[in-house]
Amino acid sequence: MSNTNKQNVTVIGLGRMGAALAAAFLDAGHPTTVFNRTPDKAGPLVARGARHAATVAEAVTASELVVVCVLDYPAVRALLEPVADALRGRVLVNLTSGSPEQAREEAAWAAGHGIGYLDGGIMTTPPGIGDSANMILYAGGPGLLQTHRPALEVLADPVDLGADAGLASLYDAGLLGLMWSMFGGWLHSTALTGADGVSAKDFTAVVVRSLGTMAWFMTTYAEQIDAGKYPGDDATLDVHVASIAHLLHAGEKRGIDARLPELHLEMMREAIEAGHGGDSYARIIEAFRPAPR
Amino acid sequence: MSNTNKQNVTVIGLGRMGAALAAAFLDAGHPTTVFNRTPDKAGPLVARGARHAATVAEAVTASELVVVCVLDYPAVRALLEPVADALRGRVLVNLTSGSPEQAREEAAWAAGHGIGYLDGGIMTTPPGIGDSANMILYAGGPGLLQTHRPALEVLADPVDLGADAGLASLYDAGLLGLMWSMFGGWLHSTALTGADGVSAKDFTAVVVRSLGTMAWFMTTYAEQIDAGKYPGDDATLDVHVASIAHLLHAGEKRGIDARLPELHLEMMREAIEAGHGGDSYARIIEAFRPAPR
Ligand SMILES: NC(=O)c1ccc[n+]([C@@H]2O[C@H](COP(=O)([O-])OP(=O)(O)OC[C@H]3O[C@@H](n4cnc5c(N)ncnc54)[C@H](OP(=O)(O)O)[C@@H]3O)[C@@H](O)[C@H]2O)c1
Ligand SMILES: NC(=O)c1ccc[n+]([C@@H]2O[C@H](COP(=O)([O-])OP(=O)(O)OC[C@H]3O[C@@H](n4cnc5c(N)ncnc54)[C@H](OP(=O)(O)O)[C@@H]3O)[C@@H](O)[C@H]2O)c1
Repeated sequence: MSNTNKQNVTVIGLGRMGAALAAAFLDAGHPTTVFNRTPDKAGPLVARGARHAATVAEAVTASELVVVCVLDYPAVRALLEPVADALRGRVLVNLTSGSPEQAREEAAWAAGHGIGYLDGGIMTTPPGIGDSANMILYAGGPGLLQTHRPALEVLADPVDLGADAGLASLYDAGLLGLMWSMFGGWLHSTALTGADGVSAKDFTAVVVRSLGTMAWFMTTYAEQIDAGKYPGDDATLDVHVASIAHLLHAGEKRGIDARLPELHLEMMREAIEAGHGGDSYARIIEAFRPAPR
Repeated sequence: MSNTNKQNVTVIGLGRMGAALAAAFLDAGHPTTVFNRTPDKAGPLVARGARHAATVAEAVTASELVVVCVLDYPAVRALLEPVADALRGRVLVNLTSGSPEQAREEAAWAAGHGIGYLDGGIMTTPPGIGDSANMILYAGGPGLLQTHRPALEVLADPVDLGADAGLASLYDAGLLGLMWSMFGGWLHSTALTGADGVSAKDFTAVVVRSLGTMAWFMTTYAEQIDAGKYPGDDATLDVHVASIAHLLHAGEKRGIDARLPELHLEMMREAIEAGHGGDSYARIIEAFRPAPR
């Protein structure tokens, strides 16, 4: 197998995620150099054809494209600050999770050293790497994603969020927030239906089918949010409050923990008390926003 | 247009939802009889070709298939108890929202009067009626859905949950619970990303793309739940707790209400304190289940 037409890549950090990233590059035929603080973890990748760098400096000079995925931003800085000069002129793709502020700071640090910088948010777990059904969100240096798309798209489907390096982290945080809420609602409901003998598999099959309808609602309500008007043509908050009573009642009968639906009810009630009972559910966004000063 | 090959149907209750159901039957060419407590609401449907019944008795005798969709189960009983004899031998499809217990009681009442009974849960709002991308869940009288599928599928995609009439309501409650949690998580995140200038439309487009990954997770975790084991091969609760700190931090900086992510964190922490930090998120289902006695 000839790799001559594939770009050299370096992966720094071989934890669960970094190892999956390096494996995907190797599977796609990219000459891949790897580095990890604890060197043992490089073993399985070397067995699959990776080149093992003994130092970070050796790792960053092996490729124009340097991907880093470690625990957090302080770990990124600790690793890369000593090799900043070696990184000059290269492209650093930081797939470590952090805050938008940390990402913007990292972008400024990179710019200060003449390093191209893309900040990324990985929207899957390690087994999902290499599957274009999953996304990695990128933000930062304009044009860099375009140039390195052929390499980066072997990891997952790259989504371009534009030049503000903070946005990958912000979207990432937002999508994770949605995920925990989805998981919470789904687990609550799976416990509820499970109490009457429904398997998680059967219930979840219907849940998955319902996601198209959910997507339709969110897309429709997104327009309401951008317009700042929440007409309750279809289902009003008043109707939702009546419906959630069924859920709470069914849960109570079955001994299901009610903290999650109680919180949703609380937010609905606040909106209704403020006079918005005839509005759509999209009105609840106001409860999350900072109070106007 | 000849309607001779289409089954007669009756719709009782012409609120937002009942009117949409009747309209879908009319659009599909079913001879449709309508009744509403407040008769005025029949006007627009009569203009589209519906037959207006002056009494409930007249309404139920007009068709073998009688669909009822009113505020709640007491309203259903108040309308139908006086015409129970007229309903004998017909099929009552109750699309009113209620509890599983109410549905099972209604099924027993119908059985006691020789009335075929299907309980349904509508998984969309009125504008979604008539679109096969949306679902109506049915449970109850075995074989009835099969027989009346040609008529019922003009309303939405009919999903058969089996003979226990309580399951449509229970799934319905469960799916609504998931919906509120999804909406809550999505609105929280839309407020968060909106604080940095991202439009709801842009953020939601990425949210919608992420739902395939979410579906994959839930399907995978459903197997863990049915097996009663939650291996954290991909993302552990320990990792989730670290990630949610980024969300909370980003939200705090932007003045976003934290009740929802704080609750998720609380549930994760409880599981970790109980020694399950190395498990997958599916472990959280135990927090919703009744404590074992
Ligand atoms: N796993 C997922 O599902 C997932 C999904 C999306 C995003 N992420 C993000 O990906 C990043 C890595 O996650 P992971 O799952 O791979 O975690 P992990 O398995 O715990 O691996 C952590 C990695 O960071 C390295 N590291 C930690 N502290 C370091 C330091 N001070 N200096 C140098 N290296 C250090 C570790 O090196 P040693 O081997 O030497 O300890 C290891 O390579 C995190 O930011 C995580 O939030 C993970
Ligand atoms: N709208 C939705 O998005 C949606 C989605 C799924 C399920 N559902 C369920 O569908 C059902 C109807 O909802 P909807 O949106 O159509 O509500 P709606 O617009 O408020 O209409 C309520 C209907 O119930 C009738 N009604 C109320 N109390 C009655 C009584 N005591 N006797 C006779 N009729 C009575 C009303 O008749 P009058 O016109 O005479 O008041 C009207 O036809 C509810 O169970 C709801 O939970 C609705």
